[in-house]
Parts: sequence; structure tokens; C-alpha cells
Amino acid sequence: MRPCRTLRNVATIVVDVMLKTGIRDPQGEAIAGACRRLGYGEVISVRQGKRFEVEVSDAEDAMQAAARIAELAGELLANPVIEEFAIHRA
Amino acid sequence: MRPCRTLRNVATIVVDVMLKTGIRDPQGEAIAGACRRLGYGEVISVRQGKRFEVEVSDAEDAMQAAARIAELAGELLANPVIEEFAIHRA
Repeated sequence: MRPCRTLRNVATIVVDVMLKTGIRDPQGEAIAGACRRLGYGEVISVRQGKRFEVEVSDAEDAMQAAARIAELAGELLANPVIEEFAIHRA
Repeated sequence: MRPCRTLRNVATIVVDVMLKTGIRDPQGEAIAGACRRLGYGEVISVRQGKRFEVEVSDAEDAMQAAARIAELAGELLANPVIEEFAIHRA
């Protein structure tokens, strides 16, 4: 039986974008300092990044949908010069 | 045998912060529009949030370390009025 075409196959794909190791993160450093001042002395460091939840339709082929989102992430969501990204299902 | 105290037990805990459901995300909406203009017509919506990688020392008791970071997240990393957060090990 063919799947019903009026019910779109929707999936949420998560893209985590972080600064590459070695790239300084002044915002994260400021947050780490604030944590320690607030009494969280166990905090050694903080790195701040971005998280995108991308809802896509026609995601019948999970591998293909992830490949498309990887392409999109490299083009629009992350700056490949200084950032790296990871993709997973929500 | 007691663990060596000069080697600190370090763990990385990830805090994902997202806007609560129902709170509008104009930045995410703009990104979703850009995705479609770039030819990614399968993108229905994008929600943008933050991801923090917090490195903590003395994390021998994983449950306790996570509880401390949850407290910290509610106090400093997320705005509980409009945001929600999730915590997991890296």
C-alpha cells in the first residue's frame, strides 16, 4: 500500500554548532567567570554554541534528509572557518 | 585504593537551552525563510537555541554534578520565564 500523500512525513533534525577547538570563546569565558562568582567553583570552563531544531517534511529517507541538512548547516547555520557542527535526530 | 587526588575528576556537561513552545522565535523564522530561499523547500520551521558545554571538576558523583548544573542553568544560562533547558553528559 502506498503511504498517504496528504500526511507529510515530518522529522525534527537537531544541528549543534560549536566553535572549533582552539578558537577563543570570550562569551563562554565571561559565563565561566560569572559561574564562579555565583559560587559554582567547580566550573572550569564554558563554551557557548548554538542549537537549531529544524523541522523538515518529506523525510522518508532519514539518511538523505540528514545529508541535506548537513549541506544546509555548512552553508547557512555554521561558519565552517571557525565553527563545527553535529547533526542528530531530536 | 583511594583515587589519586591530584588528578581531578573532570566531566563535560551539556546544557541545551530552547525557547518554550508557544514563544515566538523571529530569528528562527528568518532562518527558515532563508533556507527556503536557498532551495531547501523541505524546511518547515527552525527554532534557534543555545548550547553550553560546561566543564566541571570534582564530578565524582555524576548525579550531584548534574543537579548543581541544573541549578546554575536556571540561575544563569536560561531565562526560566521564556526558556526551558535540558542537561546531559557530553
